[in-house]
Amino acid sequence: MSPTTSSGPPKAQYFNVTSPETYIIHIEINRPNKLNAFFNPMWYELKALFDYYSHDPETRVVLISGAGDRAFTAGLDVAAASAPDQSALTSKSHSDPSRRATSIRRHILELQDVVSSVARCEKPVIAMMHGYAFGLGIDLSSACDIRMCLSNTKFCVKEVDIGLAADVGTLSRLGKIMGLTSFTKEICLSARVFTPEEAFQNNFISKIVQGTKADLINAGVEMARLIASKSPVAVQGTKNILDASWGRTVEDNLNYTAVWNAGMLQSSDVERAMTSGLRKAGTPRFEKL
Amino acid sequence: MSPTTSSGPPKAQYFNVTSPETYIIHIEINRPNKLNAFFNPMWYELKALFDYYSHDPETRVVLISGAGDRAFTAGLDVAAASAPDQSALTSKSHSDPSRRATSIRRHILELQDVVSSVARCEKPVIAMMHGYAFGLGIDLSSACDIRMCLSNTKFCVKEVDIGLAADVGTLSRLGKIMGLTSFTKEICLSARVFTPEEAFQNNFISKIVQGTKADLINAGVEMARLIASKSPVAVQGTKNILDASWGRTVEDNLNYTAVWNAGMLQSSDVERAMTSGLRKAGTPRFEKL
Amino acid sequence: MSPTTSSGPPKAQYFNVTSPETYIIHIEINRPNKLNAFFNPMWYELKALFDYYSHDPETRVVLISGAGDRAFTAGLDVAAASAPDQSALTSKSHSDPSRRATSIRRHILELQDVVSSVARCEKPVIAMMHGYAFGLGIDLSSACDIRMCLSNTKFCVKEVDIGLAADVGTLSRLGKIMGLTSFTKEICLSARVFTPEEAFQNNFISKIVQGTKADLINAGVEMARLIASKSPVAVQGTKNILDASWGRTVEDNLNYTAVWNAGMLQSSDVERAMTSGLRKAGTPRFEKL
Amino acid sequence: MSPTTSSGPPKAQYFNVTSPETYIIHIEINRPNKLNAFFNPMWYELKALFDYYSHDPETRVVLISGAGDRAFTAGLDVAAASAPDQSALTSKSHSDPSRRATSIRRHILELQDVVSSVARCEKPVIAMMHGYAFGLGIDLSSACDIRMCLSNTKFCVKEVDIGLAADVGTLSRLGKIMGLTSFTKEICLSARVFTPEEAFQNNFISKIVQGTKADLINAGVEMARLIASKSPVAVQGTKNILDASWGRTVEDNLNYTAVWNAGMLQSSDVERAMTSGLRKAGTPRFEKL
Amino acid sequence: MSPTTSSGPPKAQYFNVTSPETYIIHIEINRPNKLNAFFNPMWYELKALFDYYSHDPETRVVLISGAGDRAFTAGLDVAAASAPDQSALTSKSHSDPSRRATSIRRHILELQDVVSSVARCEKPVIAMMHGYAFGLGIDLSSACDIRMCLSNTKFCVKEVDIGLAADVGTLSRLGKIMGLTSFTKEICLSARVFTPEEAFQNNFISKIVQGTKADLINAGVEMARLIASKSPVAVQGTKNILDASWGRTVEDNLNYTAVWNAGMLQSSDVERAMTSGLRKAGTPRFEKL
Amino acid sequence: MSPTTSSGPPKAQYFNVTSPETYIIHIEINRPNKLNAFFNPMWYELKALFDYYSHDPETRVVLISGAGDRAFTAGLDVAAASAPDQSALTSKSHSDPSRRATSIRRHILELQDVVSSVARCEKPVIAMMHGYAFGLGIDLSSACDIRMCLSNTKFCVKEVDIGLAADVGTLSRLGKIMGLTSFTKEICLSARVFTPEEAFQNNFISKIVQGTKADLINAGVEMARLIASKSPVAVQGTKNILDASWGRTVEDNLNYTAVWNAGMLQSSDVERAMTSGLRKAGTPRFEKL
Repeated sequence: MSPTTSSGPPKAQYFNVTSPETYIIHIEINRPNKLNAFFNPMWYELKALFDYYSHDPETRVVLISGAGDRAFTAGLDVAAASAPDQSALTSKSHSDPSRRATSIRRHILELQDVVSSVARCEKPVIAMMHGYAFGLGIDLSSACDIRMCLSNTKFCVKEVDIGLAADVGTLSRLGKIMGLTSFTKEICLSARVFTPEEAFQNNFISKIVQGTKADLINAGVEMARLIASKSPVAVQGTKNILDASWGRTVEDNLNYTAVWNAGMLQSSDVERAMTSGLRKAGTPRFEKL
Repeated sequence: MSPTTSSGPPKAQYFNVTSPETYIIHIEINRPNKLNAFFNPMWYELKALFDYYSHDPETRVVLISGAGDRAFTAGLDVAAASAPDQSALTSKSHSDPSRRATSIRRHILELQDVVSSVARCEKPVIAMMHGYAFGLGIDLSSACDIRMCLSNTKFCVKEVDIGLAADVGTLSRLGKIMGLTSFTKEICLSARVFTPEEAFQNNFISKIVQGTKADLINAGVEMARLIASKSPVAVQGTKNILDASWGRTVEDNLNYTAVWNAGMLQSSDVERAMTSGLRKAGTPRFEKL
Repeated sequence: MSPTTSSGPPKAQYFNVTSPETYIIHIEINRPNKLNAFFNPMWYELKALFDYYSHDPETRVVLISGAGDRAFTAGLDVAAASAPDQSALTSKSHSDPSRRATSIRRHILELQDVVSSVARCEKPVIAMMHGYAFGLGIDLSSACDIRMCLSNTKFCVKEVDIGLAADVGTLSRLGKIMGLTSFTKEICLSARVFTPEEAFQNNFISKIVQGTKADLINAGVEMARLIASKSPVAVQGTKNILDASWGRTVEDNLNYTAVWNAGMLQSSDVERAMTSGLRKAGTPRFEKL
Repeated sequence: MSPTTSSGPPKAQYFNVTSPETYIIHIEINRPNKLNAFFNPMWYELKALFDYYSHDPETRVVLISGAGDRAFTAGLDVAAASAPDQSALTSKSHSDPSRRATSIRRHILELQDVVSSVARCEKPVIAMMHGYAFGLGIDLSSACDIRMCLSNTKFCVKEVDIGLAADVGTLSRLGKIMGLTSFTKEICLSARVFTPEEAFQNNFISKIVQGTKADLINAGVEMARLIASKSPVAVQGTKNILDASWGRTVEDNLNYTAVWNAGMLQSSDVERAMTSGLRKAGTPRFEKL
Repeated sequence: MSPTTSSGPPKAQYFNVTSPETYIIHIEINRPNKLNAFFNPMWYELKALFDYYSHDPETRVVLISGAGDRAFTAGLDVAAASAPDQSALTSKSHSDPSRRATSIRRHILELQDVVSSVARCEKPVIAMMHGYAFGLGIDLSSACDIRMCLSNTKFCVKEVDIGLAADVGTLSRLGKIMGLTSFTKEICLSARVFTPEEAFQNNFISKIVQGTKADLINAGVEMARLIASKSPVAVQGTKNILDASWGRTVEDNLNYTAVWNAGMLQSSDVERAMTSGLRKAGTPRFEKL
Repeated sequence: MSPTTSSGPPKAQYFNVTSPETYIIHIEINRPNKLNAFFNPMWYELKALFDYYSHDPETRVVLISGAGDRAFTAGLDVAAASAPDQSALTSKSHSDPSRRATSIRRHILELQDVVSSVARCEKPVIAMMHGYAFGLGIDLSSACDIRMCLSNTKFCVKEVDIGLAADVGTLSRLGKIMGLTSFTKEICLSARVFTPEEAFQNNFISKIVQGTKADLINAGVEMARLIASKSPVAVQGTKNILDASWGRTVEDNLNYTAVWNAGMLQSSDVERAMTSGLRKAGTPRFEKL
């Protein structure tokens, strides 16, 4: 069923893909002259990349960042999205409102599915943000597991500024990340810019990096390296179970965890890690996954 | 079905209602000589007010505060609630415990429905607290979207102090706002007073205002003004979708968002906002909602 | 159905049980020469203790801590767990993977049930942590209501270090306590040690005690004393309703609260507390529960 | 909070309300010359009636039927609903689609709330149907607890015939009643008329009455009499718990049942019923509720 | 953690336990002179039996029936339950209603847990009913997987007759089995006796056996034999997944199924069954589970 | 995002696709010499077809049947599935059980996604079954909306016969269709063949066609024609809302329905249908969707 996984990583025009170290993939949004704003072809590429690395046995952690000095991403390229033949969201092609509504709903579901491909990636994904992280930048990083940023980052949940409550993930994921706090409501209802310190205080990010963008990338790679050294069976199970805990009861989660681990605890990783720990031997080596 | 909405705002004896600016309504709890404590007639009025402004097209944001210098609200007026003919909660009118239980359950559901009318208000609601914010003051502000307070505020989840686990919203909403943290459990199980700094650190409020009560009101109006300048279609959709995300899975929320926006993205607001943004024209003007 | 509750508290070899004050029980994990690490017989004892004190009318609050100066608990005793006849988790007794999976699943469910006996305890449970709080130390304290720690505590979600995503509660409860924040993901995916300050900033604990272990115990007893002075009907109802709010909608919770309180508001505690409050009399006395 | 309950039953122009026997109320839809089709004023009246009898202690069972020989109800009065000043559903009053969508959503929620007032009625409600039971007739009877019909009844889920997927309860309740069977999908997607035999075979109704409309009424009253002879505490608890079981897990339901009954089992009804049963005495008498 | 499973089946005074064939256990409720009505000691025994056979590798299917010619079980032994020292449900030991409520809630949870031990049994459980299947007889059989009955069976959901909405499983499970149909509401709200034909038509039972009680037992054993001949890995997984599907969405269930089978599809049973099927060889033999 | 929809229907080697009438598509499983059993390439084709027709504006209803006289489909082609290079389900490629488990889980999720593409199809899907409808035949038809069959059909939930509890939809959808009745458990736990009459009595199918396979196809086309004549906006909304009702509460569903229809009731279909109904004019014509 999955011929793509055997045929090598997908080509991408608007993303640079590198491997800074074994087991670590770095995907860089690469349209810096437009502040890494997204337009139509980029969606396809993003989903193809995450679908691939989700299953690629050589990959244990994925990093995502934006090219250039100015932005993680400024969000949707509104000019491109407003071009006559692109604009499903404001399309006038159907005269009947219910048919336009159907067309819009299908389009939103497609875009959401792209962002969800990041969230569904079986490997942990770390967002490293700098400069503008506006609109889609919040949707995208909310779908990641770990978020860090450079001290110059400017965050904004942009939707109410462009007349949209529509979103492709932010409103569905912020409650999971930060709770539906007063701050969460404030930034979503007012579209005001917020700072790295506010993002840290309100648990959106877990690290503010002082210095240059290179320092940010280094911090991300360091975290990735630590995670990549652990049992991939344990790491990927941990991600899956944590995400599955949302919107469900503790009882449901405990049972799900037991069922998940029924299959996973037979891993040779357990034996390797335990033996290594008891002998106080060096870091154990784990098979690919 | 809604004759009330066409007949002007409801009269209220225990609430002052003003409009400090276009699109902004300020509801002030007005029983300052009793520390704005609630007794029976006030519940009716509160629900009537929020039901009205929820649909009123001239209103985009609602502010709520307490009159006088001493309290947002000290909670239930226990003396009044204990008066022989008022006291459904401790009523002895039925000799049979199951019939008393039924009577109590109906009464709690009614009071909860009043507080939920604040949460259900389609327009964002901002609580501006000062002095005592005890018991019902927490229930009420938990049902608001944004909470700010003056530096003199004293918060208390009062229930265990008066023998009640009963509540009209606090226990159901604090997990949504702050998570079921150690702090949440501590303040609910011990009824200890907590400070603005603790409330801020634990994400219950998003702003502490230094200075006088007038400064607090100004801060609230400023936030309201910012929100009122945005597309009301987007703002009200954002509130609805964020609230609907609670207790449900991310997958459910994404689908709900897409269905909501299928109808809403046809808004002329999108076009106005996008055009305005592209032209770097001034703030767009949006139709009433 | 419950003969055990009438036959006095269960005997425990690996736990010291004391009552520092009326209504307060202190359970101390007592295997200090092994850093209070858990092995098989301790699970039985822990569950028996919490099942007993959950219903014991003389008990209103339970404290839990670790004996000795070095650890709350270092987690599973991996050496003991790896012994040939103990090790259900890595058992080779079945040659068929599906039968081994069944055996593992049953074992995880049993261990989860032990930890859940702490969460299910009808009385509030306060964890007082110091030194190592690794692996099971997080599982266990996550099942408590209130968490405080000494400034020397070292926390670690250990699972990915020993090849396990398996857990007996941590992954199911951290989202409830802290949200699925960037920090939550980071500590679970990397197994890095985190500090009391980080634990406080991220809402895992609500108090850092400076000083000696005796100061920690004093702080716990002080909090327990405050809670024990309140109506036990209200306190235990508050715990139940807060916990039930997780993974469910606000509407569901409001209804559940009303149904719960239909039976509970007939409590004589309400009358005592109200009367006491109105008269500004001293602390009311409440019946056992 | 409930002044209406003390001021006697609401007046209704389009419904006949009688009490055929003690504890039994019969509400008859009374617009026979229009096949009992609903138009605007009838919604108000229906909700007012069910809100009243839900709490009225003299009422233990509510029957609902349609006046005249031709119909339970033919559904919405489409001609009236299409009149220029009535037609919120097809309103052109707002030129902007998102504002029209908001207006439509509010209107649907209001109509749903009327039908839900039947479902929320604390007392069991029995629908006795004959002739046309089209559109709203299905919405309304789906909100009842027990459904019976005369052998001449013609059922139709009318929505797709009038261009609406919109409904005020049918699509939300048929899965609960009949399952999402092939038959359920067929009648909803095709709007074909179905027969009493099909309705019985597919569990929509539980009794087909042969004979005249008077026989139908007699059968309904007989069932109501049987239910009214039982403990109202038990009957109303049974209704509440059964309805609460939908869309929730068995574990959740068991806990909810235990909490509900904690308050209710103290009923004197239990003692009366048990004593009566042991003595093989006649039917026990129960207090009002 | 499970010393009991290694120490042989529990002794039972009020239940006959036999093994009519390899892999099949038959538990017979054995208090025929009291119509197999339940009183206190029987609850302990029932739970102990089902906890044991749930994990016993020699058991693949459990049958349950009632001794004697007159009843599966007539339900609770009301006389015994009303005896002064037994009657937690109507206890007057606490003068305070909230403390009585707590005591009642704990007791209901305990009884529910007994009935849930039948539902939780990992092996399929088949109820074979005859004569009276009243009250607890419905609770108990609702917790089984397959229900069949002799043509002389009389069913009754007895609760409203004895003043209780309280139940230990019926109200939580009937919606899952039969839907919340008109019939379900009718039998629960009226406590009327219903027939095998009604039970069959409404999907409560799947087989009516004509003839003697011996024919009923034969029919049960025959069904058990068929199930016992299949892969126990597949059978027990099927039971778990079907039960887990209730009250959850299809999307949740599909994911749960995939996770369950990740561990289970490695079973040697798959290979044996497939090979056997391809070779058209005789019935494959499966290892114990 | 959807270039495929503009490039015509996908080619399929193992499925015949015809359009018996305007707006109706008939997909025939076409591997009659293997009893229409599925092997690897067929999965791709099936998903591609349903993804296409889900959005194709010329299509309003999809029919699915099996070519030849002998089978709808006999299920998985076990011989092909057991071939060394195909068999992900029994793969030995990984020596470590947890890595095999991961590979199996991914494969099941892929196959489930194929079957779910049938369930997700926005247009109603009607299964017309004859001969063998085994294993995957149940998975597939359970994902359809309406099921009918020829009187010679033999149904079987085959999984426990081949050592699998694994399924690609049956266990997740049968509860939704038939309830978790005694019959549902029986056929799933025993893998016994069941008849059209049993399938009808237990609500799996809604019509048994007597006669030839041509009569079956005619009956399907007739039903499709009726549905295709209705407003597609209403039909597709009805399907979406009914499916969304499963596993969720009535309150959630009512709100979802209102939100859905906020966008959809602006349809010109409503006006056309209402006008047509009032004028008693002929069938209204609706725009494509």
